[in-house]
Amino acid sequence: MPKVVVVMGSKSDNEIIKPTMEILENLGIDHEVKIISAHRTPEKARQFGLSAKNNGVEVIIAAAGCAAHLPGVLASWTTIPVIGVPISVNELNGVDALYSMSQMPAGIPVATVAIGSAGAKNAAYLAAEILGLKYDAIRQAYENYRQQLNQA
Amino acid sequence: MPKVVVVMGSKSDNEIIKPTMEILENLGIDHEVKIISAHRTPEKARQFGLSAKNNGVEVIIAAAGCAAHLPGVLASWTTIPVIGVPISVNELNGVDALYSMSQMPAGIPVATVAIGSAGAKNAAYLAAEILGLKYDAIRQAYENYRQQLNQA
Amino acid sequence: MPKVVVVMGSKSDNEIIKPTMEILENLGIDHEVKIISAHRTPEKARQFGLSAKNNGVEVIIAAAGCAAHLPGVLASWTTIPVIGVPISVNELNGVDALYSMSQMPAGIPVATVAIGSAGAKNAAYLAAEILGLKYDAIRQAYENYRQQLNQA
Amino acid sequence: MPKVVVVMGSKSDNEIIKPTMEILENLGIDHEVKIISAHRTPEKARQFGLSAKNNGVEVIIAAAGCAAHLPGVLASWTTIPVIGVPISVNELNGVDALYSMSQMPAGIPVATVAIGSAGAKNAAYLAAEILGLKYDAIRQAYENYRQQLNQA
Amino acid sequence: MPKVVVVMGSKSDNEIIKPTMEILENLGIDHEVKIISAHRTPEKARQFGLSAKNNGVEVIIAAAGCAAHLPGVLASWTTIPVIGVPISVNELNGVDALYSMSQMPAGIPVATVAIGSAGAKNAAYLAAEILGLKYDAIRQAYENYRQQLNQA
Amino acid sequence: MPKVVVVMGSKSDNEIIKPTMEILENLGIDHEVKIISAHRTPEKARQFGLSAKNNGVEVIIAAAGCAAHLPGVLASWTTIPVIGVPISVNELNGVDALYSMSQMPAGIPVATVAIGSAGAKNAAYLAAEILGLKYDAIRQAYENYRQQLNQA
Amino acid sequence: MPKVVVVMGSKSDNEIIKPTMEILENLGIDHEVKIISAHRTPEKARQFGLSAKNNGVEVIIAAAGCAAHLPGVLASWTTIPVIGVPISVNELNGVDALYSMSQMPAGIPVATVAIGSAGAKNAAYLAAEILGLKYDAIRQAYENYRQQLNQA
Amino acid sequence: MPKVVVVMGSKSDNEIIKPTMEILENLGIDHEVKIISAHRTPEKARQFGLSAKNNGVEVIIAAAGCAAHLPGVLASWTTIPVIGVPISVNELNGVDALYSMSQMPAGIPVATVAIGSAGAKNAAYLAAEILGLKYDAIRQAYENYRQQLNQA
Repeated sequence: MPKVVVVMGSKSDNEIIKPTMEILENLGIDHEVKIISAHRTPEKARQFGLSAKNNGVEVIIAAAGCAAHLPGVLASWTTIPVIGVPISVNELNGVDALYSMSQMPAGIPVATVAIGSAGAKNAAYLAAEILGLKYDAIRQAYENYRQQLNQA
Repeated sequence: MPKVVVVMGSKSDNEIIKPTMEILENLGIDHEVKIISAHRTPEKARQFGLSAKNNGVEVIIAAAGCAAHLPGVLASWTTIPVIGVPISVNELNGVDALYSMSQMPAGIPVATVAIGSAGAKNAAYLAAEILGLKYDAIRQAYENYRQQLNQA
Repeated sequence: MPKVVVVMGSKSDNEIIKPTMEILENLGIDHEVKIISAHRTPEKARQFGLSAKNNGVEVIIAAAGCAAHLPGVLASWTTIPVIGVPISVNELNGVDALYSMSQMPAGIPVATVAIGSAGAKNAAYLAAEILGLKYDAIRQAYENYRQQLNQA
Repeated sequence: MPKVVVVMGSKSDNEIIKPTMEILENLGIDHEVKIISAHRTPEKARQFGLSAKNNGVEVIIAAAGCAAHLPGVLASWTTIPVIGVPISVNELNGVDALYSMSQMPAGIPVATVAIGSAGAKNAAYLAAEILGLKYDAIRQAYENYRQQLNQA
Repeated sequence: MPKVVVVMGSKSDNEIIKPTMEILENLGIDHEVKIISAHRTPEKARQFGLSAKNNGVEVIIAAAGCAAHLPGVLASWTTIPVIGVPISVNELNGVDALYSMSQMPAGIPVATVAIGSAGAKNAAYLAAEILGLKYDAIRQAYENYRQQLNQA
Repeated sequence: MPKVVVVMGSKSDNEIIKPTMEILENLGIDHEVKIISAHRTPEKARQFGLSAKNNGVEVIIAAAGCAAHLPGVLASWTTIPVIGVPISVNELNGVDALYSMSQMPAGIPVATVAIGSAGAKNAAYLAAEILGLKYDAIRQAYENYRQQLNQA
Repeated sequence: MPKVVVVMGSKSDNEIIKPTMEILENLGIDHEVKIISAHRTPEKARQFGLSAKNNGVEVIIAAAGCAAHLPGVLASWTTIPVIGVPISVNELNGVDALYSMSQMPAGIPVATVAIGSAGAKNAAYLAAEILGLKYDAIRQAYENYRQQLNQA
Repeated sequence: MPKVVVVMGSKSDNEIIKPTMEILENLGIDHEVKIISAHRTPEKARQFGLSAKNNGVEVIIAAAGCAAHLPGVLASWTTIPVIGVPISVNELNGVDALYSMSQMPAGIPVATVAIGSAGAKNAAYLAAEILGLKYDAIRQAYENYRQQLNQA
């Protein structure tokens, strides 16, 4: 399995997750998308979480709206870093998802990024920062990106 | 197992759940308390959820604060009604828990009641209304309570 | 009268309540729609509430926006379970309705579900969970639905 | 019956309503306190609302916390002005009550004032402004108060 | 001058205030519209406020968005009832206006109604309830309206 | 009159405004405190606003809670800069005051700083930055302060 | 360099800043636009901040959305007044930006104005009020504008 | 320098950061505390950020309240992961800090955890998850902790 798995609750979240994939691609980070619902398919979430590390996954990115338990549930089944992207799919504009991801209880962290589009991008950059501690090529690719930002 | 199981995330929530127990007691509803964390003990949550119905549980009441995934996670593992009591344990005053419980995605409902003390009581009364559809003694006990309210 | 009555404050809420009806239909649950305003037609609300149980109603689903007193007012006149669906009909995006339904005082619970579309569906599923405790056919229909979710 | 009736949901709200009474007293406005719960004693609320005008009541002041349906429910049973005082009795600091009172649907207004102490006082002053249109003594008393404010 | 003056901060609020005028018209209440800004034309606000009562005005309805000081400023210059209609004209959806109107300090009340369309209508109905205490024709017209609501 | 006048709505806000005075003192800025209520003493507010510039006032600092119209009302009567300090005096924790000050309509700005203690201090520092453009001694004093911060 | 520099985080904020420029133009205030990101180009932000005063800049206006650190970061590098315009570029409607600008810690103030369009205009008017203390022509131009408002 | 540096804006945040240090200690992760203010000591923040990676720092944890720019400012100067802990130090209960940290613009992520105590702990656990990808001893220590949680 690739280093990063991007999980979303349903196919309808695909558009939101597109820039995440493109950035991972551009930075040369192996990745894959999975559709898993924390509530509708809890056993699938559990199996994925329990086996992720042994399958070589190093970072999980989970995008979810509403109650948005997905990253927290995956985090409960694994010990690798889980990045949560709160998305706005209802009347509460993603505030429900932001609270549900960031306010995790002590012991099981979720690394929460911004609601929506900025968060979808930053999840990929955060994954690059994390993997860059271990993989020089990823670190170099991310530093190149940051230098370009600086010169833009 | 009793008809109602009241689940809380940690022993420190005990004070909040006390009136729930007293009301169930007063209405003659068999009940039991369990400490299960959706995130710290996910396998325990799963086992409890998967076996609840076969063990004779008919209603689950789950009190939780912070991200408050507990009732939603239990609901994902069972098909009996789950009542969620959002509690205030941090700076967000329970709004995080209220959003996290009520905003469940389509398919897996949580019956959410008020934040804190009023909710802890109403969870028991809602359980009585639900069980009262099936058990005459419970219905009668709850109707007596409501008549007393009316005359108070 | 049918087992479930779905009440809305005005005809303009019809679109919101459509999926509720479809799900009840699919699960084989007898149901009916009524238009009752807690404030404009309080006597109609009272009559419906007072007679619901004797007419064979077992669960009330009430959708309302703004101050959204409808489920709470119906709950004050009956002892059967009332499920509240907060809907967004103004500038506050349904937060006013969510607060007004979930924050009921001790003694008179409303089982609150999500704002808007997800809530309209979950109200029907919650009714199925409640009635499923008593009626095997409903329980079976809901469990089938949940299994399909799991395999999707 | 007196011109103004101050209604509160439970005895525990007494402290909040004290300044309301004192101001009505100081301005020479006949008044009385009643304890009525919109949800626990709906028939009492209805009887009071339906008979208020014929009993000579001209303004109702209703203080309530939580879902705070009290002023709206009373307004549904009468056509005299109802002033709502949202009070803070739980984790939401009275925002739930403010929304529940002010966001009444078209047709049945509630005149909402500030949350808590300032609102409890302003409910009395607003009653004075309303009654002052009809009763010279009340108008005069309120204008004296306002002049004193100006000179303070 | 007419019994009710409806004040708005700028011509662009005209659409919001239309139903207010129509309802006053239908209930036979003399009325007039004025454009006054609390901040851009403070002297005009002062002159209007100071002279309103002597000019025969009995109720002021003030609609405003943003900081929405208009009803509070008018209330500071007069002792007749001021009804505030918070309107949504920016990113805060009228919550800023709702807070700014309802949270008036002790001594100078504003009778706040709902944000936007429901509030624009209820301001007229509340004026009818207030004036109905003194004028039988207005009371009768409003009671007819309420009876029609009840039978709808 | 001094260069800076610090206005508060009531004596009870004195504690909040103390650090403002101390900082102005330390930076050698002439200043004075006044108690003026936008609503209870509107004529006093108007007289102060209209005459401030001619009396040599160059910056007004206004601290207020609740509806917190004070800085906006003063700004409507003058063309010198008005700095608003939202303070928390009720259940809304100063959010009402923050909205009421910052959301001023186009044409009449209020320079809003933080709620409470940080804002009370920053109002003085902002006054120093503004006056420092014109008065070298004030600029120098403020720059000294900033250098000390840097070395702390 | 001109007296006022208007800084925005990215070109996409250009539309928001247009009225700011027009008002500065109309009031005869020298100005210039710069694109600087607090996070993507921190060194550019630092250089601009450190040199602004020596280059003759007297007021900085910074518009930013999201975390909106731009005005605070510029303020950390300079001692001239920084005006912050919170803008709405995501799901939180500018509330995130409003909080991030107004809630600056003691010592480093940002003069915060309204979210979005009203704020973009008021930033220019506030700059005029500040510069008007020192430059008669600017004071006169702003006073003319205010008189026109008054007569409109 | 140690692998993890915990930065706080002022000494007064020390109590909040204590559990972070204890957990890092217990998990055998080299660490150090620094006091840096994003606004009061921006040059110190810049120097620390620019040199962190070369000094061997692999993860930065930054706790801050109010506008809480600290983690975002540090992230702008470095390419190693920055974890933000929003803390409640004023009337907004940490919501201002949560928004200011999580809503970072695309390109410069901050890994945000819960407000206050739970976040202070989870920042350390998240650092362990990140470093555990590279260092077996840290991974093992964290997995032991998680197993203990599971058995508690």
